[in-house]
Amino acid sequence: VVLARDGGRGLTHRAVDREAGVPQGATKNHFPTREALLEAAARRMAEQHRGAVQRLQETTPCSVTAEDVGELYPALLRRAVAADPTPILAMVELYLEAVRRPAVRAALGEMVVANAHAAAELHRAAGLATTTGDAGLLDAYFLGAAISVLALPAETRNIVGMDDPETVGHQVFAAAVPRMDRHRDHRDRATG
Amino acid sequence: VVLARDGGRGLTHRAVDREAGVPQGATKNHFPTREALLEAAARRMAEQHRGAVQRLQETTPCSVTAEDVGELYPALLRRAVAADPTPILAMVELYLEAVRRPAVRAALGEMVVANAHAAAELHRAAGLATTTGDAGLLDAYFLGAAISVLALPAETRNIVGMDDPETVGHQVFAAAVPRMDRHRDHRDRATG
Repeated sequence: VVLARDGGRGLTHRAVDREAGVPQGATKNHFPTREALLEAAARRMAEQHRGAVQRLQETTPCSVTAEDVGELYPALLRRAVAADPTPILAMVELYLEAVRRPAVRAALGEMVVANAHAAAELHRAAGLATTTGDAGLLDAYFLGAAISVLALPAETRNIVGMDDPETVGHQVFAAAVPRMDRHRDHRDRATG
Repeated sequence: VVLARDGGRGLTHRAVDREAGVPQGATKNHFPTREALLEAAARRMAEQHRGAVQRLQETTPCSVTAEDVGELYPALLRRAVAADPTPILAMVELYLEAVRRPAVRAALGEMVVANAHAAAELHRAAGLATTTGDAGLLDAYFLGAAISVLALPAETRNIVGMDDPETVGHQVFAAAVPRMDRHRDHRDRATG
């Protein structure tokens, strides 16, 4: 929460003490340096992310379709920008901190790999041809689209066609995931 | 420079005095509040960006091809992540500040609109069907891809297929820009 509201440089021991409602100094006892505190925040976010992905996998019916998966990203983007922007803003802060701090970089890397593997698996269960690489790009495009929708004024979003998060979510999905119908087209032409 | 190195919360009057080599207090005289300082940074970046876009347009030969335009984004991404990451990191910081600050949001909006118009114009001069909306998405995907390449460890980039910025640049371009061959396919099928 502190990371999203106040940014990486707002993540101080004292701010976490306040937010968590623990006595002043408690956070410093656990995480003596700011580096340790940021790394802990990264690991915490990675765990939460992994938990969410796992719950998604456990609740995915065997009969999940490509359309179901395609509807996931508009829903995720709408939630990321409308319901509660805290997690996605914290994520962008984490990317910026990762550029500067090796420990944060490592924690972020683990999260992104786990996420890409899980997404590719889900997509393939739905009959899509998504590779781990496609899933990685999907993640990157999603991040860029989410921060754009959150940061740009309404007039700008209107001009650049980003006023509806659901539409953008569909576009992000279509941009990164290989289209089955296009594959079919090619095959049809090759064999026909 | 201060924005990229130290982030939005590192952009203080004193840090700018130091970086610019002016006497302490000079920056505060010009921009009395941090809000004014951030807005000035946003306007400065918007101008630099506009200048770069204009130089690009002026030096674009009339005979620019779709292939030339397609090679622009791998080159831009390589420069953004390899030669000097300062501008793209400052840009991400600006997006984060824009979420919180209306004045920064407005300046960023103007820059993004000018950029999307200019890009769509360039693409169309090269015979591509890119709309301002496509150009806006291209910008968003580029930002997400650039920060991902900068933030992720080498092993992660390898696994998610982001180890070569040039390849990622080509993918970002292909993701947002409507493919002529696909359009031709549709037309062929419709008229054939």
